[in-house]
Amino acid sequence: MAKTFTYDEVQQHRSAESCWVILYGNVYDVTSFLPSHPGGSKIILQLAGTDATEEYDPIHPPGTLEESLPESAKLGKIDENTLPAEEKSPAEDTKNGQEQEIMSIPECLNLDDIEQAATQKISRKAWGYYYSAGDDLISKTLNNTVYQNILLRPRIFVDCTNCDTSTTFLGHKVSVPFFVSPAAMARLAHPDGEHGIAEACAKYGAMQLISNNASQTPEQVVAGAQPGQVFGWQLYVQTDRKKSEDMLARIQKLPAVKFICLTLDAPVPGKREHDERTKNVASNLPVRSAVMGDGSPSAASTTPEPESSGGVGKALFAGTAPDLTWKTTLPWLAKHTNLPIVLKGLQTHEDAYLASLHAPQVKGIILSNHGGRAADTAPPAVHTLLEIRKYCPSVLDRIEVWVDGGIRRGTDVVKALALGAKGVGLGRAPLFGLGAGGREGVERVLEILKAETETAMRLLGVGRVSELGLRHVNARKVERDVFDGGDGLEGLAERVALKSRL
Amino acid sequence: MAKTFTYDEVQQHRSAESCWVILYGNVYDVTSFLPSHPGGSKIILQLAGTDATEEYDPIHPPGTLEESLPESAKLGKIDENTLPAEEKSPAEDTKNGQEQEIMSIPECLNLDDIEQAATQKISRKAWGYYYSAGDDLISKTLNNTVYQNILLRPRIFVDCTNCDTSTTFLGHKVSVPFFVSPAAMARLAHPDGEHGIAEACAKYGAMQLISNNASQTPEQVVAGAQPGQVFGWQLYVQTDRKKSEDMLARIQKLPAVKFICLTLDAPVPGKREHDERTKNVASNLPVRSAVMGDGSPSAASTTPEPESSGGVGKALFAGTAPDLTWKTTLPWLAKHTNLPIVLKGLQTHEDAYLASLHAPQVKGIILSNHGGRAADTAPPAVHTLLEIRKYCPSVLDRIEVWVDGGIRRGTDVVKALALGAKGVGLGRAPLFGLGAGGREGVERVLEILKAETETAMRLLGVGRVSELGLRHVNARKVERDVFDGGDGLEGLAERVALKSRL
Amino acid sequence: MAKTFTYDEVQQHRSAESCWVILYGNVYDVTSFLPSHPGGSKIILQLAGTDATEEYDPIHPPGTLEESLPESAKLGKIDENTLPAEEKSPAEDTKNGQEQEIMSIPECLNLDDIEQAATQKISRKAWGYYYSAGDDLISKTLNNTVYQNILLRPRIFVDCTNCDTSTTFLGHKVSVPFFVSPAAMARLAHPDGEHGIAEACAKYGAMQLISNNASQTPEQVVAGAQPGQVFGWQLYVQTDRKKSEDMLARIQKLPAVKFICLTLDAPVPGKREHDERTKNVASNLPVRSAVMGDGSPSAASTTPEPESSGGVGKALFAGTAPDLTWKTTLPWLAKHTNLPIVLKGLQTHEDAYLASLHAPQVKGIILSNHGGRAADTAPPAVHTLLEIRKYCPSVLDRIEVWVDGGIRRGTDVVKALALGAKGVGLGRAPLFGLGAGGREGVERVLEILKAETETAMRLLGVGRVSELGLRHVNARKVERDVFDGGDGLEGLAERVALKSRL
Amino acid sequence: MAKTFTYDEVQQHRSAESCWVILYGNVYDVTSFLPSHPGGSKIILQLAGTDATEEYDPIHPPGTLEESLPESAKLGKIDENTLPAEEKSPAEDTKNGQEQEIMSIPECLNLDDIEQAATQKISRKAWGYYYSAGDDLISKTLNNTVYQNILLRPRIFVDCTNCDTSTTFLGHKVSVPFFVSPAAMARLAHPDGEHGIAEACAKYGAMQLISNNASQTPEQVVAGAQPGQVFGWQLYVQTDRKKSEDMLARIQKLPAVKFICLTLDAPVPGKREHDERTKNVASNLPVRSAVMGDGSPSAASTTPEPESSGGVGKALFAGTAPDLTWKTTLPWLAKHTNLPIVLKGLQTHEDAYLASLHAPQVKGIILSNHGGRAADTAPPAVHTLLEIRKYCPSVLDRIEVWVDGGIRRGTDVVKALALGAKGVGLGRAPLFGLGAGGREGVERVLEILKAETETAMRLLGVGRVSELGLRHVNARKVERDVFDGGDGLEGLAERVALKSRL
Repeated sequence: MAKTFTYDEVQQHRSAESCWVILYGNVYDVTSFLPSHPGGSKIILQLAGTDATEEYDPIHPPGTLEESLPESAKLGKIDENTLPAEEKSPAEDTKNGQEQEIMSIPECLNLDDIEQAATQKISRKAWGYYYSAGDDLISKTLNNTVYQNILLRPRIFVDCTNCDTSTTFLGHKVSVPFFVSPAAMARLAHPDGEHGIAEACAKYGAMQLISNNASQTPEQVVAGAQPGQVFGWQLYVQTDRKKSEDMLARIQKLPAVKFICLTLDAPVPGKREHDERTKNVASNLPVRSAVMGDGSPSAASTTPEPESSGGVGKALFAGTAPDLTWKTTLPWLAKHTNLPIVLKGLQTHEDAYLASLHAPQVKGIILSNHGGRAADTAPPAVHTLLEIRKYCPSVLDRIEVWVDGGIRRGTDVVKALALGAKGVGLGRAPLFGLGAGGREGVERVLEILKAETETAMRLLGVGRVSELGLRHVNARKVERDVFDGGDGLEGLAERVALKSRL
Repeated sequence: MAKTFTYDEVQQHRSAESCWVILYGNVYDVTSFLPSHPGGSKIILQLAGTDATEEYDPIHPPGTLEESLPESAKLGKIDENTLPAEEKSPAEDTKNGQEQEIMSIPECLNLDDIEQAATQKISRKAWGYYYSAGDDLISKTLNNTVYQNILLRPRIFVDCTNCDTSTTFLGHKVSVPFFVSPAAMARLAHPDGEHGIAEACAKYGAMQLISNNASQTPEQVVAGAQPGQVFGWQLYVQTDRKKSEDMLARIQKLPAVKFICLTLDAPVPGKREHDERTKNVASNLPVRSAVMGDGSPSAASTTPEPESSGGVGKALFAGTAPDLTWKTTLPWLAKHTNLPIVLKGLQTHEDAYLASLHAPQVKGIILSNHGGRAADTAPPAVHTLLEIRKYCPSVLDRIEVWVDGGIRRGTDVVKALALGAKGVGLGRAPLFGLGAGGREGVERVLEILKAETETAMRLLGVGRVSELGLRHVNARKVERDVFDGGDGLEGLAERVALKSRL
Repeated sequence: MAKTFTYDEVQQHRSAESCWVILYGNVYDVTSFLPSHPGGSKIILQLAGTDATEEYDPIHPPGTLEESLPESAKLGKIDENTLPAEEKSPAEDTKNGQEQEIMSIPECLNLDDIEQAATQKISRKAWGYYYSAGDDLISKTLNNTVYQNILLRPRIFVDCTNCDTSTTFLGHKVSVPFFVSPAAMARLAHPDGEHGIAEACAKYGAMQLISNNASQTPEQVVAGAQPGQVFGWQLYVQTDRKKSEDMLARIQKLPAVKFICLTLDAPVPGKREHDERTKNVASNLPVRSAVMGDGSPSAASTTPEPESSGGVGKALFAGTAPDLTWKTTLPWLAKHTNLPIVLKGLQTHEDAYLASLHAPQVKGIILSNHGGRAADTAPPAVHTLLEIRKYCPSVLDRIEVWVDGGIRRGTDVVKALALGAKGVGLGRAPLFGLGAGGREGVERVLEILKAETETAMRLLGVGRVSELGLRHVNARKVERDVFDGGDGLEGLAERVALKSRL
Repeated sequence: MAKTFTYDEVQQHRSAESCWVILYGNVYDVTSFLPSHPGGSKIILQLAGTDATEEYDPIHPPGTLEESLPESAKLGKIDENTLPAEEKSPAEDTKNGQEQEIMSIPECLNLDDIEQAATQKISRKAWGYYYSAGDDLISKTLNNTVYQNILLRPRIFVDCTNCDTSTTFLGHKVSVPFFVSPAAMARLAHPDGEHGIAEACAKYGAMQLISNNASQTPEQVVAGAQPGQVFGWQLYVQTDRKKSEDMLARIQKLPAVKFICLTLDAPVPGKREHDERTKNVASNLPVRSAVMGDGSPSAASTTPEPESSGGVGKALFAGTAPDLTWKTTLPWLAKHTNLPIVLKGLQTHEDAYLASLHAPQVKGIILSNHGGRAADTAPPAVHTLLEIRKYCPSVLDRIEVWVDGGIRRGTDVVKALALGAKGVGLGRAPLFGLGAGGREGVERVLEILKAETETAMRLLGVGRVSELGLRHVNARKVERDVFDGGDGLEGLAERVALKSRL
């Protein structure tokens, strides 16, 4: 019979020499695990001696504990009666100043409403994770306003009796031209987690990308997928390539996953101060909180700190490989998966062109600035799309070009498509939908966006996604800010040299 | 003698199986009418068992009841003593937070004052209808700011002793170069309704377009028209063409109506959230509330709802035909009216050019984004006008080009005229005028705008409308945002192909 | 001995049939004068039966009474004991909400401070007059922001030991390159009036233009002028040309007045709503209040009013001739004065070019949109200056080009000069200076602006006004908004035809 | 034994005839020194009869007293018991309205946090000095927003395992590409003063420029410098050249000082109203407060004052030579130092080109508008850098071009470098760091900026400073506002004539 410990006993082990934590009613000795924790030892030590379940659970897929710790680490059970009474964080009570009425899901008319409802419901910590972006949020803001600066050009006397929002992604039929971008830690928003998103996607025929760092296992996420339901799986290559190779093998066994999405726009984390400040308020940050958003490592611990500057950041980052290159990474990948590859995080026409030279292994690219979470003042995807049209439009014929970031309206979706995007990714919106109402909230997000997209198409005089073209938009206000070659020669030289750089 | 019912008796009939309503003191059984109601059965069912007069009256022209229901549907009278005491909506009391003094009509110095006064006076529901526009109101806002970004170029040493604001529309003399755009449900603002607008127009020699969905019959609106007073009648083609054909025949008999205005910019409704949210507050929305603004079907019920998503929207929309085309609609129209045609809602130079090829049947076009109520981020009329000047200026010689949307000042009127518009339509302003003070309020709107227009002309050194030209305005700030051909070739190809597409 | 009346007796005469007013302790019968009052009878009738001295005095030069009324109109004296106790307008008490401390003149560091101090000190009525501009104040605002959008280009390694702000206007030496624009009703701000401004100008060697409608006579204004002090006199041509001819003859006798400034940018008044609303608060508007700002007739009574729309406006305007033309006015002027002419209110390069063809009679022009008080959205003077540089730079060589409107800083002065202006006019600033502290306040305005101008010159590396040139400014942000020829051909045609139009 | 005075005795000497002050517990008779005080006698007289230590100390380097006064001026000691109780300025208590919690240094996540913390801690007077800039702060604001308007262009698939922020300045190795610009009066922020900054720089391998008017002597600042630590010394040439020559000789003896930075952008002080108004609150301004920011004379006393306008300003300015020229100053400098010269304050490409012609004596230039403290609306350094790229890019090859002003983020640093700057100067940030926490606060500033710079480099796919280039930024939004040659010919003419002007 397992030994039972009191809270006071556990509290004696709060150092790097002896570090215990309580998880799911059990007591673990994690001392020997400290050095190998992907997020660094410090974060665990902050929770040492306490019941860390609440912090641990929403961000670790089931099985993580068993994978990480030897059986012997489990010391026994905690006597639940000895645990201190839970205290609700006063910070969370006063989060929104005065009490506001929370909108019900049906009352939410647009994605801003959804975000507002979620903001009122989810924890301050979860909000900090989802809302935050790099530095001064300039790219995050620009991601949205860039769409507002593009005008539509509705045509008249077009029969719009029928309107069909379906399209294909890499040859797979989907009902809507937008998809769910890879987003980690969905269970932080709601217990339905990534699987709840999958169920909502099934209902609306939408594609979903599964984060490398999802809070549920890939098998759990795709469980019960509808016939024809399309998933992609996001890969962050680990320095320990073996780990990534094992995951690729595991994914290969899931027929619902149709491609690998290799994320490239966050080789190091951006600096997300909203996230940071939230941490300062509720200072117990768990391990995997290090992976955020679409799964990139959080900036949390890279913020310089007087004593241990950089140390924790490096530890946190130990897992993710910063040394990917055109020459080495794609060939390695070819050895370990025969699924098509989609590259995520391209922000220049040069890289889009380079990617197109890797067809057919690379079948698509996602233009993305990581939701504004990586380099602040990085260009919105629309800029990169216009750059491609300007300098190397053939890319659009050779591979599929998707965009993400800043989508708030059906008109935004339609504009991206009219400019040449094949698909449009949603990052924060499904997470806020989950926060606002679990699976039902995500369904509302998809329902709103589908209806808005249909309305926009009909008012443009367009019956099918494939009919959308440049003649339906006026992007002049944006075009004048698009990259113009620097000193010209340099840009030219680079384009000439592109192929040789491979 | 008619039977008399108590309120409690009527209250027993609140289902699709047996649905009674009270109108004008009578009790009607509308059960068999439910499926054929243009706005769908749901809206009637919400009012089932109650006195619906207050909701029904302001938006249904007299005679609608008799047209729609057989004699047998009228069951008898209501015992007025049994009706519940009317309750004033608390929402309306607190509409403007604290009590503000309402400006009198003479105190209103400009159209913003008029809107403010009306906002304080009219019901929350009416305000929601009038104020609302698509999505984020970007087009609505842009409609106005685009004029503020155009500069005037006043000339000196010009004799401006005399100033004549008169002009002609389709050959008919009018005293002012602006006109009242088609606007439905005027009686929601004030009992004077569309006829009150007509009387004000008579006083100022202004043209008025009558909405297809006016809250008074066309015969009522034009009753007592002054000699020379000019009207147009707006047509929304119905899926049941016979209904439209009957209306066209009826209009043909009204000599004051000089042309048919075929509205094309709202084949499906835009998404108007202010309208929506108002509905949520005061949840009894009557049938014809489905037609809004210049008469387009409201977005009210197309917003997805968890259970019955789309159902009501489709019902509401059953009446309006979404299948109009250049090839079929104009020939059909030619068979049923010999009045000239003005096409409303053009938003691209391509469509303006196509329209000009249909002269002389088509005598004019109205550049309009439907007051920003259809596709949000659709271009303001000034953009389309500048596009026409840029790509196909001959259109301006072949047909009359009118604009509407965003007019707030006499300088706005003068700018549109200087850029080539023959007439300038007013959408919300007369409705707000009506709300602020009935017929007198509309007169004040016309009086203010006429005085401002005269002042602007004199200060420009212009004595007659026909003297206004490009040299009087500097639109450079706007020109740089005007459509520039997309990828150029595509635009060119389209212009070459335009005629063959007919 | 003069008869003495009680207040009650005077109160009996408050109609168009018998209209008495009290002025300076005397009682006048002004009945027969009513029809010929330049500002219309209505304004007098509003003051009928009362002591109108307070309203009359600050805006009528001494001698006006004697000129306008026959001796017989003076009926006698008022018994001062019978006058009602003066009541301070409660509106004025609460003008600024809570009590603020008023800055002393030395505490005022810049022209905004001066305006703020004056706003706290002067009457609500006077503030309304000075502050107001056309419609939505777009031109007024643009007048200032256009300077902020021009960047300076300071040079280094230039000896700036000495800095000389002096220059010449029409050959007359002045100490500063800015001057006081014609502004009426200075005594509304402070009893020192236009003469107080003249004294301040003497101290700083600044030129002053005297308004046609000054609240002091030209003789009073120039009394005690310093040797070399330079004045211009502003002319509004009267429909009754004889009146203007008499004034020209009278001005010819004042050697300090060196030229005639013919104002052309307000042939009719703009619409000044701040002015209007102030009137509504304090409803006693005196006669000459009709002339405002630099002396143009106020918009006060042209705002449409339910009953008498336009009537008062026309009356008010009866005096000012709206029929001036290139062909007739300058030759007439040549017959009645041999002083050089400066034309004020040019807003296009076409008119600037036309003016230059009239040298040497016309020796200068003032680019001005009347302080934003005439046509709203008229271009700021800087726009017109840049237009001239673009289309007809020779104008700058043939006549002197001055600008006014929007000057708030010495850097603004320097920018205008660098772009080619010979002089820079100040409109509201000296009036606010007068309001803030009489003559001393005006001195502070000139002192601040002179010091700021010197600093800007030194930091640019410029020792003399004549050294300033295009290389010292970067106006690209403004240049892109400058008129670009409309359809080009039209503009070209006009320029070709300009000479023949004379 | 020294005589001891009571406070009352000292109070008797408060006039120009007999002026005593208390400093460091001693009583001095400064009557004979009054006329030769660089800041004018007035400022001393304001402190006459009082203990001026608090005002004197933070802005005078040790030794100033001994240099300035003969031994005989020291009259004796003050009886400290007779001094009045110090009163805390009530203005300072209420500076921020309500009590706010001050962020600790580790809590400060970015430079805005640092400024906020410093603002709460330092005196109102110090804040006024540091925060203030010319006129309306337009240049100060633009300095920062210009960076926000430049977009980054991150590249993917680049190995960013290693990131090296080191570079060289004039051949000297430094660890970070940013440096501390010359800033006077550091001890006003914190007793650690300029030496505290030097210690922080040592820790982060950053270069520091020492202000000509530092509050510590150059010897004190560089005391204990690390091997390889790099300093520059800022020179304001004095009218009395001998004084400057003596300083140059003294600097020559400090091996840590590698070059002379000759500041040229403030030949006269700009107008800094925040500084001014602070003075009005706390009216005791000490002598050397006349030198501010990077050491330029403050505008404090040049603001016109009713009686003595200009007088104090001139006195204050007596020391700094306004007569520097290309032809005379550099040759003179060559005679008195063999250290390389860096010219600071260039704002046009013309001057940059001229400077490059003086290589190798001139080894570098700093593009700077003096932190917006000189001419308001002067261009930000980025504008000048883009001008150089446009008109004379060879300058970048011939001398080092550094920039300063507006740096708030690591992305700003990276953008400046990508555009061609070799180094990036920090003006206010280290001072605010000092204010927020002395040496530790400065370290935090450098730590934050270094971490942000590394993150930006990695996310761009850049491993070394030298790899940054135009392809990493999109500056189109800024480029369109860059100087465009004025009338073209003039600009051309100037460039042709540049060499001959030497």
